[in-house]
Amino acid sequence: MTQVEKDFQDLLKEQNAYKETIMLTHWDMRTKIPKKGVEQRSEVVGFLSEKLHQLETSKKMKYFIDVLKDHSDDEVIQKTVETCEENYERSRKIPIDEYKEYVMLQSKSESIWQEAREKADFASFQPYLEKLVDYNKKFANYWGYEEHIYDALLDNYEPGVTVKTLDNVFPELRKSLTELLNKITASSVTPDPSILQGHFPKSDQEAISLAVLEKMGYDFSSGRLDETIHPFAIALNQNDVRVTTRYDESDFRTAVFGTIHEGGHALYEQNISKNLAGTPLSDGTSMGIHESQSLFWENFVGRTESFWNSHYDLFKSYAPKSFQAVPLDKFYRAVNEVKPSFIRIEADELTYPLHIMIRYELEKALINGDIKVADLPGLWNEKMQEYVGITPTNDREGVLQDIHWSGGDFGYFPSYALGYMYAAQFNHTLRKKMDIDKQIASGDFTPIKEWLTKNIHQYGKMKKPLEIVKDVTDENLNPNYLVNYLTEKYSGIYKL
Amino acid sequence: MTQVEKDFQDLLKEQNAYKETIMLTHWDMRTKIPKKGVEQRSEVVGFLSEKLHQLETSKKMKYFIDVLKDHSDDEVIQKTVETCEENYERSRKIPIDEYKEYVMLQSKSESIWQEAREKADFASFQPYLEKLVDYNKKFANYWGYEEHIYDALLDNYEPGVTVKTLDNVFPELRKSLTELLNKITASSVTPDPSILQGHFPKSDQEAISLAVLEKMGYDFSSGRLDETIHPFAIALNQNDVRVTTRYDESDFRTAVFGTIHEGGHALYEQNISKNLAGTPLSDGTSMGIHESQSLFWENFVGRTESFWNSHYDLFKSYAPKSFQAVPLDKFYRAVNEVKPSFIRIEADELTYPLHIMIRYELEKALINGDIKVADLPGLWNEKMQEYVGITPTNDREGVLQDIHWSGGDFGYFPSYALGYMYAAQFNHTLRKKMDIDKQIASGDFTPIKEWLTKNIHQYGKMKKPLEIVKDVTDENLNPNYLVNYLTEKYSGIYKL
Repeated sequence: MTQVEKDFQDLLKEQNAYKETIMLTHWDMRTKIPKKGVEQRSEVVGFLSEKLHQLETSKKMKYFIDVLKDHSDDEVIQKTVETCEENYERSRKIPIDEYKEYVMLQSKSESIWQEAREKADFASFQPYLEKLVDYNKKFANYWGYEEHIYDALLDNYEPGVTVKTLDNVFPELRKSLTELLNKITASSVTPDPSILQGHFPKSDQEAISLAVLEKMGYDFSSGRLDETIHPFAIALNQNDVRVTTRYDESDFRTAVFGTIHEGGHALYEQNISKNLAGTPLSDGTSMGIHESQSLFWENFVGRTESFWNSHYDLFKSYAPKSFQAVPLDKFYRAVNEVKPSFIRIEADELTYPLHIMIRYELEKALINGDIKVADLPGLWNEKMQEYVGITPTNDREGVLQDIHWSGGDFGYFPSYALGYMYAAQFNHTLRKKMDIDKQIASGDFTPIKEWLTKNIHQYGKMKKPLEIVKDVTDENLNPNYLVNYLTEKYSGIYKL
Repeated sequence: MTQVEKDFQDLLKEQNAYKETIMLTHWDMRTKIPKKGVEQRSEVVGFLSEKLHQLETSKKMKYFIDVLKDHSDDEVIQKTVETCEENYERSRKIPIDEYKEYVMLQSKSESIWQEAREKADFASFQPYLEKLVDYNKKFANYWGYEEHIYDALLDNYEPGVTVKTLDNVFPELRKSLTELLNKITASSVTPDPSILQGHFPKSDQEAISLAVLEKMGYDFSSGRLDETIHPFAIALNQNDVRVTTRYDESDFRTAVFGTIHEGGHALYEQNISKNLAGTPLSDGTSMGIHESQSLFWENFVGRTESFWNSHYDLFKSYAPKSFQAVPLDKFYRAVNEVKPSFIRIEADELTYPLHIMIRYELEKALINGDIKVADLPGLWNEKMQEYVGITPTNDREGVLQDIHWSGGDFGYFPSYALGYMYAAQFNHTLRKKMDIDKQIASGDFTPIKEWLTKNIHQYGKMKKPLEIVKDVTDENLNPNYLVNYLTEKYSGIYKL
């Protein structure tokens, strides 16, 4: 390694120290912090974030980018420089004063949104959302785009994916899912979710959550499980990747499927190549690929018949007595019930992408200037009726439900549906190499985890999302795999 | 507030952000971090500590000290500037290269010590300890002193206390305690600690620990309780002051008295005046005064007959069934058994100060050059025989037991005994104002907590330790109160 490469690594170490500290602070604020400690801690996070931002956009950083770009023989250093340059350019294009105003607006808007949601009062949130949209439009123009202004925002979360990519797959996906939903709604066969009721103590749910993570191959010597309100997984460093979950004592599904979901995110982070440690490449490559990993484990493993065939006894050993009398078949069908619902995060596997498409279409139109913020509640409800078949009775279960827009995160939502399509496409490829059902039924997930690591996890940010999809599946993004998977699954459950 | 005062406050905010982050990292590393995450986290702590050190010794800091010293009408700002100046001067006097070498030596020595202690192998630790002593001598000379080189080190932990102060009280204290110990050893009345045995599940110990903290007036909306190996209390900010404890399922005393002890530290930090928030004055004024608060609650409240009179039923409601048959009197005597032991942190109330004096005498002689590191094991054992009446069979239960020296912390140990004497002296004063026994027996500790807050806690670092002792008790440090307290207590228990 040359001297300048070593100096560059020292700068990266500083950057990592701030990142790790910020992550630890976030984890603590969402799992452990006492109520009154929050105010002061928020200032600390603000300070650390500013320091990190200063580093990422420093003259020193620019110097290393200029000196090292295309001048290092080391592929990791080369990609690291590229990533630093992307960050540098994105940040540099925003005038520092606007950035600071925006950060303050974000934090203010989040608390306004929280209250607005509580009271189902869109009007109080509207002026803030308008400002957030305006800033995002401005930023998108600073960043630049080729075809569609919204592409500039998408690029933050799913580099390489554009409006064109999405408009190429979403309409078809929507049509197929709607048809399938209509068939299901018309089916006389209906799962009975009432059998899932019963008081399930937190401590037992925690025990089963830990057992499932262990089985997935989650490394507890590099992680831990904690309780929170809005579950997440978080990588403090490569050897400290934490999972959180929520326990609802009247509905175990929240914790069990939530833990598997977050466990999927965590496995990704735990299995990035150690060669990338200490660089910004040691991170999931995009929100979509990240979501493909969590959804792969949650749906394509955790909600399958094979999984419950082999794990129902384990489940019953922790579950309330009432489950002893529930036959496996009824249980499996109940946890896979399809039922249109207002809240995205409570949606079933089938209607979930429809929720995402509504958000995508609305935010694209907002950024594009085709609609106004004031139009949102009405449009939201119309689309819910059109796509999902139900109309929210208030904005709390409608347009105000998600935190994303209150933090200015436009362009994020599509990742959820992309991740789902990626996961189905990966699942299809894996099935050609391995009898997954048999593997899941055996209770040994090692080969599955190893395949994901070899094909996806290890690369971190060394590959862009669509590059991974192509390399792994030998095909571009194709929504048919998700449609086929859902059709097959629900044909069985609903005897279509 | 003037503009320069505002700018100074901005600098303090930065300083606080680093401090809070370092504290959070320490808390996490000692309670939650997964094993493999430690290595990377240690680098992060190193980085943050260096940043903090740079700030404390920056030209900017020096500028504010010069401009504001004796030029602010605000008493808090004035004291803040003084404190910053003390830090600045202490740090500045150490050449930066030596400081860095020393920090690396500290961290290396701690891990060497851990292994050496494990193997009871002093020889492997000796060369490191020699270097640590040499550095401390050098630093003491950089810092300067009036009478005794060791004073320069003491000043780090107990500003204002000198060798003269200690040599004025320790010999007398030792003589009295030894006489009392001899009487106790000769007494035919002996408590029976075997009644305290029995399996006490962690969850029940946690419940009683939480209940006791609640009763002490510890504010859970500004704190929390977690498990650890070596218990501590830690203030992340004024509204986030955490307690940790250790659960030994075969001996509840570790958790119960440990939690009360750490709770005492935490009450101090939680009740510092809000006017001092965000300044370096919002901290305990010294290790000794801090220890006076933990020991006050642990011994002068938690180990008293009145406490158990009123809390034994509460205790039994969590305790294993075997305790139902144990009469209160036998219980009280058992938890107050005096028994010479090798390990300081397991020592009873009476022999504890003797352990401290051994360490004080040895480290004073080391720094003074009167003895060599190689002489330590032998001298340690001789003094243990002379002071406590028993001889360690190996260095693990002798000279290697404490972590302090391995981190270069010379001058720290006396704080423990000072804190004990302070606590006894405060206790004596409080007894003149309030019928404490009656108050403790009532189970309402509010007036006690309020008295401590009014007289000690609120001031933070606004007063120096001996200033507080004088202001509260109207007297200088006086070891007789501790002697009287112990004599009276054990005369009862051992029927002397």
